[in-house]
This record gives sequence, C-alpha cells and structure tokens, in this order.
Amino acid sequence: MNLIQHLDYLFNPRSVAVIGASNIPGKWGCDILNLLLTRGERKVYPINRNRSEVLGVKAYGSIGEVPGSVDFAVITVSGEALPAAMEDCVRKGVKTALIITGGFSEVGGGGAEAEREVVEIARRGGIRFIGPNCAGHLNTSAELFTAPYLPSMREGPVSFVSQSGNLGLVVLAMGYEAGLGFSKYISSGNEADLHFEDYLEYLGQDEKTGVIIGYVEGFRESRRFLELAGEITRSKPVVIMKVGCTDCGATACRSHTAALSGSDDICDAAFRQAGVIRVDEVGDLVDTALVLLGQPLPRGRRVAVLTVGGGLGVVAADALVRHGLEVPPLSPATMERLNALLSGRWSRGNPVDTSGDISYPCLAPLLEDENVDAVLIAGPVWAPSGFSAFISTPPWERDNLADLEKMVRAVEEESVSNLDATMELMKRYQKPVVLSVWVDSRVKDGELYRKLWDNCLTPYPTPDKAAKALARLVEYSEYLGVATGS
Amino acid sequence: MNLIQHLDYLFNPRSVAVIGASNIPGKWGCDILNLLLTRGERKVYPINRNRSEVLGVKAYGSIGEVPGSVDFAVITVSGEALPAAMEDCVRKGVKTALIITGGFSEVGGGGAEAEREVVEIARRGGIRFIGPNCAGHLNTSAELFTAPYLPSMREGPVSFVSQSGNLGLVVLAMGYEAGLGFSKYISSGNEADLHFEDYLEYLGQDEKTGVIIGYVEGFRESRRFLELAGEITRSKPVVIMKVGCTDCGATACRSHTAALSGSDDICDAAFRQAGVIRVDEVGDLVDTALVLLGQPLPRGRRVAVLTVGGGLGVVAADALVRHGLEVPPLSPATMERLNALLSGRWSRGNPVDTSGDISYPCLAPLLEDENVDAVLIAGPVWAPSGFSAFISTPPWERDNLADLEKMVRAVEEESVSNLDATMELMKRYQKPVVLSVWVDSRVKDGELYRKLWDNCLTPYPTPDKAAKALARLVEYSEYLGVATGS
Repeated sequence: MNLIQHLDYLFNPRSVAVIGASNIPGKWGCDILNLLLTRGERKVYPINRNRSEVLGVKAYGSIGEVPGSVDFAVITVSGEALPAAMEDCVRKGVKTALIITGGFSEVGGGGAEAEREVVEIARRGGIRFIGPNCAGHLNTSAELFTAPYLPSMREGPVSFVSQSGNLGLVVLAMGYEAGLGFSKYISSGNEADLHFEDYLEYLGQDEKTGVIIGYVEGFRESRRFLELAGEITRSKPVVIMKVGCTDCGATACRSHTAALSGSDDICDAAFRQAGVIRVDEVGDLVDTALVLLGQPLPRGRRVAVLTVGGGLGVVAADALVRHGLEVPPLSPATMERLNALLSGRWSRGNPVDTSGDISYPCLAPLLEDENVDAVLIAGPVWAPSGFSAFISTPPWERDNLADLEKMVRAVEEESVSNLDATMELMKRYQKPVVLSVWVDSRVKDGELYRKLWDNCLTPYPTPDKAAKALARLVEYSEYLGVATGS
Repeated sequence: MNLIQHLDYLFNPRSVAVIGASNIPGKWGCDILNLLLTRGERKVYPINRNRSEVLGVKAYGSIGEVPGSVDFAVITVSGEALPAAMEDCVRKGVKTALIITGGFSEVGGGGAEAEREVVEIARRGGIRFIGPNCAGHLNTSAELFTAPYLPSMREGPVSFVSQSGNLGLVVLAMGYEAGLGFSKYISSGNEADLHFEDYLEYLGQDEKTGVIIGYVEGFRESRRFLELAGEITRSKPVVIMKVGCTDCGATACRSHTAALSGSDDICDAAFRQAGVIRVDEVGDLVDTALVLLGQPLPRGRRVAVLTVGGGLGVVAADALVRHGLEVPPLSPATMERLNALLSGRWSRGNPVDTSGDISYPCLAPLLEDENVDAVLIAGPVWAPSGFSAFISTPPWERDNLADLEKMVRAVEEESVSNLDATMELMKRYQKPVVLSVWVDSRVKDGELYRKLWDNCLTPYPTPDKAAKALARLVEYSEYLGVATGS
C-alpha cells in the first residue's frame, strides 16, 4: 500500500472507532464522537472500558471487540494509555489513526521518548497516523469531521494543513467569511509519523483540492518539501505561512510542535524557486487563496485602478507599487473611450477616478487596453442602500416611498447583472478584476454579495489588501510563465 | 476672531443654510438637508431659487432672504454658480461654509483659477470654509452631520481628518465595527482655504478629542504641521496614514486633491520626531486608535504572550519581534506561580502556552512580573459556544440539555466577571492587556463582546494584528518617555 492509498483511509474511511469515547460534552472523546455520529455515513464504534453505550450508541470495551474491520481510529485517551491503545489498533488491523492526546515531544524529555514508542508500535503494525497533540481533521466531500469546535464551513477546493490546531480554526473561520470552501483540513500536531510533506503529497494529487494552504513552523524533510512543492505548484498553487523567522518565534515553535525552523532568508529563496507563495500574516493565507480561486492568471504586472473617489485610488496605487506592481498610463484609445463615457471631471489617467460617475461602463475599455493586465476596483463602503437609510429618517414626502423602494430594487438588480457581465468580461479577456469595498454585515444577506461570495470574488475591505492579494497572484503567474515579469 | 473661535462655527453652528437644497434623494442638497433637519437642534434654512418649500420646510430664494443670521452654509450648487453663492454668503455675514461642489483645482487648469476666485471672495468676507470637493463633516456631540451615507456611528473621543471623503467613510465604518466612538470628522476636500493643519490645531485644543487620526496625501504647511503635532502629541496621540510615497501614488494624489506630497523618508523621520504615529495600511488607523484608547501606556517593550494554543503564541511572538518588541524570559518567581496554576504540559516559558488550561488565572502573575511590560492574549475563534453547537446536533441524551444551557450561561457570566477583573488589573499595574481572537459575528450581540467593544478592548482578529497595534502603543509611550527603549 503506497502513501496515497494509505492516506485515503484517513480521508475516506468506511469505519471509525473512537478510543476514549465519552458522554461528557466538552471532552474530545464526546465532541468528536458526536460529530462522527451526526455527519456522514459510515460505521462508528465508540470504545469505552466502562460503558456499554456512549451517546446512545453501543460501545465496546476495547477495539478488539468490534465485530467488523476498522479503517480509522480516533484516539483521545490519556498519554499513559496511548501505547496500549495503539497496540490494540495494531492487533485489530486498523489502517490509520488520529491522536488527539498531547504531552509528548512538545514538552520535551520523557514525552519525546513516549512519542517514539508509539511511532514504533504503529510502524510495526503498518498504521499511519496524524498527531499526536493535534486537533482533528476533516474531508467535506465525505462529510468526515474529527475537528470539533469548527466554525461554519462549506465544501470547496481549498485544502489546508496546519501545524497549529488553534490557528487552523482561525483560518477556517476567516476563510468561510471570505467565501472560501474547503475540501480537506489537517491539524497535524506533533507530526510524529505523518508530516506536512506527506499531506502535501496527498493533496497534490487529490482531485478535489485546487489550492493548498499551510501554516508551518518547521519542515521535517525540507528537501522533499521543495521537490514536491516544485512539482505541485506547476498545476495548483501552494500558499504557506512559515513562521519562526525570528529567534523568539523559533523558540516558541520548538516548545509547540518540536519542529525545527530554518534560516528565514534561505526559506524565502527556496520557496520562490519552488513556486510556493509565502505570506507573513494570518489573514494573507485567506486573502491569497481567494484571489487564486476567483481570478484568471494575469499576463503581467500592469494594473488599472478604477475608483469613484480619489483617495481610494491613491491608496490602491501606492500599495500596488509597494508590492511590486505597476500602474501604467492608459493607451490613447482607452483615454478616448473613457472621455466619451465620463464627465469632464474624471482624473484623465490611471488611477481612473470617475469623480462619482458610475464606474462599471469603464471596465470593458480598461480590460481591452493592451497596457492593462488586471483591474483593481476600489470602492468605499457598501452599507444598506443610501436610499433605504433615507427612507428610514425623514418625516415628510412619504409619497415617494414606493418609488424609492423600486429604485433600491432596480439598483440591486442592475448590480447583479453588472456582476454577471463583469465575470463574462474577466473570462473573455482572461484578466483579473479585484474588488475592494468595506462591506457592512447588514448587506451580506443580499443577492449581490452572495453571488460575489459564491464566486470567490468577495471584496477586500480596503484597497491595500486587494493590492497585496493581486501582487501574490502576479507572483504566481510569473512563476508559471503566464505573466512575463518586466 | 481667532482660528479656534472661527472653527467653532463649523462644529457648533446655531443656524445652517443649505444652498442648493433639493427634494431629490441621492442629491447632496437633499441628503445633507435631510440629515440637518432630522438631527440636532438648530435653525436650518433650505435655499432654492425655484421652490418655496424643500423637504416640507420653508425655503428661501437666496440666503439674503433668510430672516435671522446664518453661522454656517453648506453649498452644493454647481461650479459655475459657486462664486455668486459665496458672494451671497459674504453679504449675509455667514461665518463659515462647507463646499461639496467639485471640479476645481483637482482637475487643473481653469478649475484652479475658479477655486482661487472663491477663496478670494471668502477671505474678503471673513468666511472660512471646508472644501471644495469634499464630502461633509460631523460633530457627534452637537448632533451635526453634513456627511451623508455615513455608516453606523457613536460618540467618542476619536477625531478624524481625511483628505479623501470616500476613504473617510471606510475608516468610519471600520472604526465603528472595532468599537471606536467619534467626536469630529472632516472630509477636507481640496483644502482651498482651511486645511489639515487648521483642523489639527482645532482638534489639538478640543476637549472632546482624545485621539486624532488622519489620512493625508500632502501637507500645505509641513513646518506648521510638525510644530503643531510636536505640541499636541505631548498630550494626545496623532496617528496618520500618509500616502503618495511611491511615484505612482504621488501622481494620483495630485489629480485627486492637488496636494504636494514630499519625500517619504524625510516624512518618516519628521513624523517620528514630532511623535506622530505613522501607519501604512488603512486598517492600521483603526487598529492603532483602538489600542491607544483602550490601553494604559506600557513602560517598556517586553511582552508576555499568553495563549491556549501553541501556534497562536508562535505567530504572536514572531510578529512582536518583527515589530521591534521583545518576548523576554519570565522571572523565576513567575515561573513558580505558573507552575502552580497550570498542568505539567504548559510551555514553561514565554510565550505561555497553557496547552488548553484556562488562561485567565495566569494574568495576574504575568502583570506582576517586573520583566513584563504588557501582555498579549492570543485566543483562537470565538463562535457561538461549543456547548450550544453541541446542543443543536445530537439526537440523544436530551436530559442533559437544561444542564448544558446552565453551563453555557455560567461560562458567559464567568467571562464577564473575568473581564471586569482584568480591567481592574490593567488599571492597578498600568500595563496593557491586548487580546486577539477571531470573533464570529453571531456572538457580537452578547454581553461579553459588548463590554469589550464599549471599553475599546475589542479583540484583534489575529495575533499579528494585535502585535502590530501594541508596537505602535510602545512607540508612542517611548516618545512620551513613559517607556524606556532598550
């Protein structure tokens, strides 16, 4: 059985045992069992020495007593009981496991020894496992969840390996809000057996995974990582937040997952060579995945900025240049077309500041311009319609209300159809159109926002965030040779 | 009448005229009039040549026909009609004005000339004005709003001058969400008459203003700005996002507000000398104001990181060091106290990773440690309680439900009382406690979040954001000599 076949038992097991099953909410053995029992369709066996039933389901005193075969065991027992539990798994012929239990190499000394013992037992029995000291994993398409306390989540092409379970939750939560759908997630814990490189290999060939993101404190097999990444990034992007670049972070890493973190500059250069997109803030993992999923690959660094208000254009241009992109002059033909569309007060250059005129009609001329590889639309605030705000306040002129509501609806319908047309244009010209606008939570239920969210076109809150994400996309496009650096 | 007295008529006028008053929602002359009529208590006079009533209120054909005196005029008429409108204001003895109308120096050529003409008329008549090409202003304590399309807003100590009205709206919206209350806001437009430095001088002496934030594309009087700032920052912080630092941004600035932007490095050094906190991302304006309002000034750079999960601590430590702060070893006494509080699995160092143990009891020992100037608490995700999520799913064991709900309530009550105790500790030791946790919008109605929000202790979404904000606070504290740099 090769690695890929083996890991399939982790993500698509036909039967799961929970060793350490419990009835007490808040305990891993209860919360994970609950997830397994309420989602997906597979055999689930609670293992508990003292109870014949857990969460209303027949429980077994040991995994050996389970009648059928067990593909995958979730182990939540205490550290002392772990070696015996793993021995039981070996005897039972379990293929894969996930060990929640902590207190091993991350605490040093005897913990590291105990961890080695468990690895040895598993190796002998041909069991591959996640953890120990991890916080679960998931595969949305199989409805398999062993990570409790998950935020809202939907299925999609992002797979995520995190060397921190807590940070993993933050990224999953931020990702959902930004519109990311996830395929697989692994909180890899101490990586005593399976480690980042193994998951990367699996996700690289996984058809449901379109973008791989990772939080990494250290690599066990740097060379293998770079070789794998160099291959995978040819067809799917890999975005990694690698920390431990300061002395202090490195020390914290060691006590967290016992990972060895390398020199930061070397890491940067190696990542670049392998086409890995490195980010340095947690939010960038999400921002970058979003732009990779929602946008076509640009063919160069030249960005047209389109805005209704000057300052937003200034911030966008500033950030684009700071991140290595260009804000070039527009072609004379484009200038002419914009002159015909806009009032005399527009900025007459790039950034295109319409001075309040509607900006949507400018999009096609900009995308058609040969000097333009991408468009960044910098909008201000998207709150409940100005019209509705108006409706709610004035005590007079109530006669106009019906008309106003009609206007609001008409504006919203027009926006949705403009969005459809924009997506059509992006496809036709194969150029990204990245949007920044601060979105009030009260409009997130609307059709327009939903459509943006569903298509990974969710707006960035500020122009500088949009510019940074676009710069990562250009970086990847240049690596692939789609964009030619200038 | 000195500048301060003059500007008082802008922020506390007893009577306002809207020249260009309109009945058509979406037009500035309608939306601003609506704001003035529905908020605050003062005389409001719509001026409209063709209507005897606007929004149900008696209108006047010209400002000259208004029976009483007029302190402040909002002018929304077209560019061609502007000089005559300003002449009318002079004849009427108006003290101050705000000109929404655009199409002046920001479009170059004849626009600049027309602008100079309006300035001349105003100067002759002793009128000081905001704009042209601006998007309004506000003073919450006077319930005066001339900026339509505002997001939610509450009164508070932040005052904000923005050389972009659209960017201003983004910052106001982000600020509200983060818990900032605003006192005054000015969209300063082209600054043909009153400019950034004038507003700064006013806000510097304004008792309701505790923190000044600004978005600046260029200064008209750099020297005066630095002198003023140097004085003001001794007693209240000034945070500025100064753009135009790249060639491209500088070009965009010129076409936006006709401001001249200076060399970036010089700007940086001058800001530092004057104690001005410079930020380079839009969101940092809000993040920095928040930490300045919610936290005491730290006496040094040494930060203890407290977390329930390793990766969050690693990210925090990494970001702290990247931003120039330190994550020092804890004193032996603190180590002993933490050993007594935490299970054997804690990290035994700084960052303090409790490995899942409740972290609140560690706060007092950390704040008492003489090696620690501030604490950064790095939490994961704050979503609807894990217990509630559990309640919603399992089909069995319903007997426990009442108990579970009691547990949820007990946890929430305990959290609120822990927060009270934490604020007490912060006050006693005069050390900042900055929190990072990703907050799901569904918990934002709860008592705990509300209390954090009300006290400017709103959590940062990720540890790196919290670290960056804390670094700004230390920077300011060092400038004031409260913190001693190391």
